Amino acid sequence: MNFPFAPQAVRPVTRKNVVRVLDAWYVACRSSDLGRARPLARTILGVPLALFRDARGLPAAVLDRCPHRNVPLSLGKVKNGELQCAYHGWRFDGAGKLRAVPGLPIVDSTSEATLAAPGRNARGYATREQDGYVWVWMDPSVHPTAEPFALEQVRWPSYLTVRQEVEVEGTLHSTLENILDVPHTAFLHGGLFRTEEKHHEITAHVRRTRGGVEAQFVGEPRPPGLAARILSPSGGLVEHWDRFIMPSVAQVEYRLGSENHIVTTSMCTPITETRTVMHTALSVRTRLPVKFFAFFAMPFAFQIVKQDKVILRAQTEVVDRFGTETFSSTAIDLLGPHILHLLKKAEARDLDSAIVRDETVKLMV
Amino acid sequence: MNFPFAPQAVRPVTRKNVVRVLDAWYVACRSSDLGRARPLARTILGVPLALFRDARGLPAAVLDRCPHRNVPLSLGKVKNGELQCAYHGWRFDGAGKLRAVPGLPIVDSTSEATLAAPGRNARGYATREQDGYVWVWMDPSVHPTAEPFALEQVRWPSYLTVRQEVEVEGTLHSTLENILDVPHTAFLHGGLFRTEEKHHEITAHVRRTRGGVEAQFVGEPRPPGLAARILSPSGGLVEHWDRFIMPSVAQVEYRLGSENHIVTTSMCTPITETRTVMHTALSVRTRLPVKFFAFFAMPFAFQIVKQDKVILRAQTEVVDRFGTETFSSTAIDLLGPHILHLLKKAEARDLDSAIVRDETVKLMV
Amino acid sequence: MNFPFAPQAVRPVTRKNVVRVLDAWYVACRSSDLGRARPLARTILGVPLALFRDARGLPAAVLDRCPHRNVPLSLGKVKNGELQCAYHGWRFDGAGKLRAVPGLPIVDSTSEATLAAPGRNARGYATREQDGYVWVWMDPSVHPTAEPFALEQVRWPSYLTVRQEVEVEGTLHSTLENILDVPHTAFLHGGLFRTEEKHHEITAHVRRTRGGVEAQFVGEPRPPGLAARILSPSGGLVEHWDRFIMPSVAQVEYRLGSENHIVTTSMCTPITETRTVMHTALSVRTRLPVKFFAFFAMPFAFQIVKQDKVILRAQTEVVDRFGTETFSSTAIDLLGPHILHLLKKAEARDLDSAIVRDETVKLMV
Repeated sequence: MNFPFAPQAVRPVTRKNVVRVLDAWYVACRSSDLGRARPLARTILGVPLALFRDARGLPAAVLDRCPHRNVPLSLGKVKNGELQCAYHGWRFDGAGKLRAVPGLPIVDSTSEATLAAPGRNARGYATREQDGYVWVWMDPSVHPTAEPFALEQVRWPSYLTVRQEVEVEGTLHSTLENILDVPHTAFLHGGLFRTEEKHHEITAHVRRTRGGVEAQFVGEPRPPGLAARILSPSGGLVEHWDRFIMPSVAQVEYRLGSENHIVTTSMCTPITETRTVMHTALSVRTRLPVKFFAFFAMPFAFQIVKQDKVILRAQTEVVDRFGTETFSSTAIDLLGPHILHLLKKAEARDLDSAIVRDETVKLMV
Repeated sequence: MNFPFAPQAVRPVTRKNVVRVLDAWYVACRSSDLGRARPLARTILGVPLALFRDARGLPAAVLDRCPHRNVPLSLGKVKNGELQCAYHGWRFDGAGKLRAVPGLPIVDSTSEATLAAPGRNARGYATREQDGYVWVWMDPSVHPTAEPFALEQVRWPSYLTVRQEVEVEGTLHSTLENILDVPHTAFLHGGLFRTEEKHHEITAHVRRTRGGVEAQFVGEPRPPGLAARILSPSGGLVEHWDRFIMPSVAQVEYRLGSENHIVTTSMCTPITETRTVMHTALSVRTRLPVKFFAFFAMPFAFQIVKQDKVILRAQTEVVDRFGTETFSSTAIDLLGPHILHLLKKAEARDLDSAIVRDETVKLMV
Repeated sequence: MNFPFAPQAVRPVTRKNVVRVLDAWYVACRSSDLGRARPLARTILGVPLALFRDARGLPAAVLDRCPHRNVPLSLGKVKNGELQCAYHGWRFDGAGKLRAVPGLPIVDSTSEATLAAPGRNARGYATREQDGYVWVWMDPSVHPTAEPFALEQVRWPSYLTVRQEVEVEGTLHSTLENILDVPHTAFLHGGLFRTEEKHHEITAHVRRTRGGVEAQFVGEPRPPGLAARILSPSGGLVEHWDRFIMPSVAQVEYRLGSENHIVTTSMCTPITETRTVMHTALSVRTRLPVKFFAFFAMPFAFQIVKQDKVILRAQTEVVDRFGTETFSSTAIDLLGPHILHLLKKAEARDLDSAIVRDETVKLMV
């Protein structure tokens, strides 16, 4: 029976065009954010998790709800690699298995009969720690069928890598599209690296597989904007790829002349239907001194991120208000429709039916 | 599929006794609020609109959602009388018709085939600009069958007109009733222009047509309150009419003696089910100097508005909490029941069945 | 018809494991909070009430919604023991009966025909004033079948009583369990009066009737924490009872040696499904001077309450998020399961089928 006149909870509504791929790895946090004394609360795909390090120092992830009285385990502390609830002190190992119930007579508190009673374990999730990130496999009912995305760029010698964590109000697929979309840069980021007046026709080769989709741009001039002028004052050929790697990675790769190489990889973690955290690693080899890069390029990057956050939030508010997306694409929306198609196939566990295809598109920049 | 445990949107509930008349004009904004460079976001009857001025300077209104990626068009800018989306630069004319898709090869970007593809226009709404206000016809499927309410009072010579915009938390019909209701003035605004002790029996003639309802008060003494004493120190006859003009205008007209004439017209725009914006024009001809009026009468008016805002908000909160109105009227609730009746008939597009009637009511003031 | 795109109200969802016993007394406020000039707004079990004192000074409670235009009666004022609405001045007596409609011609304003019209009374609730509290019987359709809980401790000579009002985010049964639960004190309040290391096995005798459940603890040593050391420096026997008295009272009684006797009674009032107000009376007879008690024991009590508020709120958030409780109890959850069982039986008006039982449980402290 619920109280009248004072609704406490609300019925969730199915928001159209939200995709949720469970059997996949997502970045939960930076390795450096997860210490050995305190657990960390993170939400992925709407599922609250308590992260901690077990006795070996390996990351562990359990559902953030104590089976005893349902308080968040992330409020507790880590004792000898076990997660101890803040309310009554129940302790769980890295797999979520109950290890002790304090207060019971000593013979009972850790006995098999006590610990194995139904409903007393915390649900555990598979984890990996790799290249400075902790990944979680979000389907606890299925063993991981692959390894997380390998962030090779951070291992390349003579590259500078900068890492950033940004939370945006946007669905996973809208965020991925935004990162990889070329045409909006002339408007939303107008003047920063592309201008509204378009004079150059270039060619994009788009290749879609079941593992993602890539756009390779041919004939792109050095952009007239500020950023490109700083990086490659002598002009030179631009090579440019935008890549989506299933189900959560967006990668932008630029080469300007022989000296400049920038790879920006954003591992996107959907935390709720309409909030996404981007863990971005930007690796760069450039003729510019590192300090110069830090002083000039970073404010520029922050400005872009800020503008994208504003527009994604506005888009999300409109779609929430109307209850569904009503997107209308043209040929130059190169990757967004493919991203949504692949995610929907993966969500339906029907990725095999996604058709591999190539296409060539002309666009003005 | 929606995420568990983290509802992002909520199912709207039908709130009882909310009326929504679409085929009608509503004030969207003051003329002076709508410039030529930037669009303006306004919501009417729950529908978000982007207002702007087209190439001729005429006001235009389109649904505030870009057909391309659903961001609000009101975040964009106006270029040569076209509204340009902030995200990818799609441009729309005053009727909402798509005029250009930047980034497409030049031959395609404004071709008929591109622009006429289904779903690429923004929904347009009819507009009028009149007496200092921009009006919008809220049914885009029906051509306006009438012109907006003519605010004649602002054209009268030797009258001072003050305009005010106030947003209240109240349904359209509760706000209209509040503006036109006499008995509450003695309690909610007790001491300001009517007192709780009632000594005078007066007569109200109430006339209802299909276009509204009017109450004319006969025998009303000069109110004992402060306001009336300032306006008409010598006493004299009071003439007083309260009028509702379908579906959104509330008008109060007072004559005190031969010198004083005050007409207050509130054009009420429902923005959501329970929020209403009142655009009020107060026109006055009085024996008092204008400065006196500004110094003394305006604070008094602000005090009344403030008290009404508090009570409308409290009423709305209670009705929301219980899910429906349970009003119980007596004979001296002169106009409220008529207003609701007419609005409901209009909403049902059955105004012809509304019975024209006259009645005479005695009340104490 | 409701507006699109702009939900104003939300559909309440049945939250699992919320219990709502209507035919019972709940504390609405302290006697001293209810004066004779102004009404008081209080919510119990989701029902908004306007409390006031009638002409004899007795407390009255009516549904906080004027039958006329649905504004909260608690915004009004009390005139000669009648509650007068702030909007139009309708007046109600202590039973909620309409007594006057100002503005109607004098012959009509208080006539039986006017006052007796259907839907014009405010719903009234039975009240009692006792031991410094105002109690309300929350089922207006059933005459009180009992009297409120008698708070005898405040009448004992040579006891100091301190009263406190605290609002927590927790269901009624989770709040009651929290107050009466022993094992959590070692963890949530670790170091304050019990420690995580447990060395003493004690015995609890649990006796459940249809009117409540009591745990009596035998063999409990003087706790090693700070509080006990202050109260009973010489050690001595501890006597300790935890009691739940249906449906809203939690009582903790301690005797330390012959000199110290503390009874803490919390009358819990569920205001919404997940918010509960605790009216706590702590009565103490101790060897310590009153000032010492005030300076040292009170901050200690505040610290405990603060920690309990945090954990109850976190528990509530998790249960809200998942939509239901999934509690898993062991033998040392002495009272919580009994409390929920009795409340559910009472809610179903099937308390007669609740089985009376005794049990003995060993636990470590």
